[in-house]
Amino acid sequence: MAQKPARPKGTRDFSHEEVAKRNYIMETIKRQFELFGFQPIETPSFEKSSTLLGKYGEEGDRLIFKILNNGDYLKKVPDETLDQRELHDLTAKISGKALRYDLTVPFARYVVQHQNELNFPYKRYQIQPVWRADRPQKGRYREFFQCDADVIGSRSLWQEVEFVRLYDAVFSALHLDGVTLNLNNRKILAGLADVMEASDKLVPFTVALDKLDKIGEERVKTEMQEHGISEDALNRVDPIFSMTGDFKTKLDQLRDLLSGSEIGQAGIEELEFIRASISQLPLQGSTLNIDVTLARGLDYYTGAILEVSAPENVDMGSIGGGGRYDDLTGIFGLKHMSGMGISFGLDRIYLVLEALDLFPATVTESTQVMFVNFGETEAFYAMKTLMRLRKHGISAELYPDAAKMKKQMDYANKRDIPFVVLAGSKEIREQKFTVKDMKRGDQSVLSFGAMFDRISSKGKKS
Amino acid sequence: MAQKPARPKGTRDFSHEEVAKRNYIMETIKRQFELFGFQPIETPSFEKSSTLLGKYGEEGDRLIFKILNNGDYLKKVPDETLDQRELHDLTAKISGKALRYDLTVPFARYVVQHQNELNFPYKRYQIQPVWRADRPQKGRYREFFQCDADVIGSRSLWQEVEFVRLYDAVFSALHLDGVTLNLNNRKILAGLADVMEASDKLVPFTVALDKLDKIGEERVKTEMQEHGISEDALNRVDPIFSMTGDFKTKLDQLRDLLSGSEIGQAGIEELEFIRASISQLPLQGSTLNIDVTLARGLDYYTGAILEVSAPENVDMGSIGGGGRYDDLTGIFGLKHMSGMGISFGLDRIYLVLEALDLFPATVTESTQVMFVNFGETEAFYAMKTLMRLRKHGISAELYPDAAKMKKQMDYANKRDIPFVVLAGSKEIREQKFTVKDMKRGDQSVLSFGAMFDRISSKGKKS
Repeated sequence: MAQKPARPKGTRDFSHEEVAKRNYIMETIKRQFELFGFQPIETPSFEKSSTLLGKYGEEGDRLIFKILNNGDYLKKVPDETLDQRELHDLTAKISGKALRYDLTVPFARYVVQHQNELNFPYKRYQIQPVWRADRPQKGRYREFFQCDADVIGSRSLWQEVEFVRLYDAVFSALHLDGVTLNLNNRKILAGLADVMEASDKLVPFTVALDKLDKIGEERVKTEMQEHGISEDALNRVDPIFSMTGDFKTKLDQLRDLLSGSEIGQAGIEELEFIRASISQLPLQGSTLNIDVTLARGLDYYTGAILEVSAPENVDMGSIGGGGRYDDLTGIFGLKHMSGMGISFGLDRIYLVLEALDLFPATVTESTQVMFVNFGETEAFYAMKTLMRLRKHGISAELYPDAAKMKKQMDYANKRDIPFVVLAGSKEIREQKFTVKDMKRGDQSVLSFGAMFDRISSKGKKS
Repeated sequence: MAQKPARPKGTRDFSHEEVAKRNYIMETIKRQFELFGFQPIETPSFEKSSTLLGKYGEEGDRLIFKILNNGDYLKKVPDETLDQRELHDLTAKISGKALRYDLTVPFARYVVQHQNELNFPYKRYQIQPVWRADRPQKGRYREFFQCDADVIGSRSLWQEVEFVRLYDAVFSALHLDGVTLNLNNRKILAGLADVMEASDKLVPFTVALDKLDKIGEERVKTEMQEHGISEDALNRVDPIFSMTGDFKTKLDQLRDLLSGSEIGQAGIEELEFIRASISQLPLQGSTLNIDVTLARGLDYYTGAILEVSAPENVDMGSIGGGGRYDDLTGIFGLKHMSGMGISFGLDRIYLVLEALDLFPATVTESTQVMFVNFGETEAFYAMKTLMRLRKHGISAELYPDAAKMKKQMDYANKRDIPFVVLAGSKEIREQKFTVKDMKRGDQSVLSFGAMFDRISSKGKKS
């Protein structure tokens, strides 16, 4: 009996329309990465387990896909490990490789391994799939692409400015206006903890603050108090629970609030530099915002923290994010390399563009003209013409069999092919082509040149 | 202690130069696939083990990378399986997914699963990585890309013609002339066996014939005789051991040789159709050849067999191949779908283009202009200008720190950046830019417009 065809759960097939739309987004991002001076690299889909494990916490280790060693993978496993079913031990012995979980750790490995070939500050981008054994749910898959750009080996705040501009440039190129670029800084958060004299409570403080949007001011404050932050301390930073206004207004508020904290002032200076630089040349379609509740990657980010919100008329949440880090490559032995990176959420950007109908119609165009097959002689004539059209950049096909006219026209219709050419003995004699416009329904007898003009005036590839 | 960074064996990192060159090849192939009416699909990196196992023979099964189930993968494994170390059983229980081994089986799965959404004849292309646990050696990797185009649901010989033209179009677009497209047909091979009255010996006959190039006529004949093919039988097909001449000459020879075999004549007719069609419009840079010793995929191909040889001045062997098959989707329950497919060997084409110095110089260009950083005011000025240049499609960077001049120039040199802009207070006052041509070494003071013209006249992105 035949096998029922099925995919593993959490994975996707992409049809030609989906591939075309995904490529449109990726090519747009890539183009801007390159205009900003980032260079592409690619790393293998799997890494040694030792490269990946222990880098993403216990939960991460659990979600990494491990690859079984080839050959007799039990050979070196002692009876005891099997008898006792020591899972952790056994896994280490039967699996030495794993699918990458993100692009960041492979990038760190790459930088250290190739450090003598690279020029620092080193700017790379990488667009490749990653794999996670998360429970699949709507919008969450076990295989998905990440689109990352990082610069490593520079503490300059111009990097922060550049990444803000890069986000703006990409979303403008995608005609996606109204995006908010939310900015925070670990030093601001540390400054707030400082002002509260609760520096040891930085983590529970920020974890609770992060929930402000979802659970509201009161419950956030209650949670903070449960972690031992006093009411008096909270009063000292009270404005942060209800900040409004533009970037400058919020920055001024924070400047007052943090005047007593050295690290807080350092954070203010960083935000001020970014504000000043962006004000020299406004962003194209995005808005820069300060969001002190933003606390992503706090175990990792040491300066700027960035998160991108989709336009307000789409319910989507974050479509990108990033930040400044100080010790990405330390685990592999290259210390003191400050850097910054950002990421684009391909799948969510796709959904946003779909929701707002922002994919250009030409993106999913494929074959522009099909020649009807009337038999061998006519097909020879068609084929010669096809090759000329293709040479001129027009995507063209011959229906492969001299099937009934209706069947051939149905195929062209279903494939959304805009033009069909009918060329029989009369056309061959006159070296002409009867061209049918499938949308308008009319047809005209044209020379090769006129046919070419007609078809190419409609297609993207002209 | 820091971990030593290393890759799993048989895998590769790709630098920006390598990525750019690989993309150049893939984009060229893709462009031609689309001009010929093929549409892209993508399938997941891993499939259910049941989809892949048993499709590539015992050796194939061994070389497939299996993915360990997540969570407590031993839960359902009986003690006995562990005690007895029943490897095959254990693998089936602890691994339900595997990395794809080629693009053909996933394509077959895709076609059957999506048959109601597809229009037949269905033409798809797919460019994605595959994984094989082969012993790594020069030019053989455990992860590599396949570039496949297939049409399914058509027996028309126009498909064969189209694939020949597609190969020719791709290699022409890559400026790789002198490629040989070797054509054979299973029906020709069957016809030869028929003429020898040794139809039951088709496989050992073709296996031996395939070695003609390597071991010579005498040893091939000896091997055939060892398999029970008589000298008399061999004499009846003797011309095949020393065929020379162009396509038509060889075809005429074969026509004589196979006049007594019905299946042989069917093969001749197919080759004749291809010859006649191609003769109407010659190939651009490739040569079509008949090679009766070609026997790749004989357990699989039912008609045309194609193999592409690199130009004679490069020692490379096959850089692509394909053929006609009759039952690709049968394993998943969709019968009687004849199709044909071809594949491009990306890694080998890369080596050939490298050997013949055929990569366009512009392919690896990246940043076209770097602005020297003289401090905050100058950097603001630079940044505004950068954004204008980028808007006009020029890849541009600001050196991130106001470092010593030498350091900044060194960086530009090492990165191969063709232009460096120096803009200090004088330039700002005059709204000018001092532009240094890094190759020629000279510099000139230019307006924005003149600078733009100067830079874009050199770059690919103008």
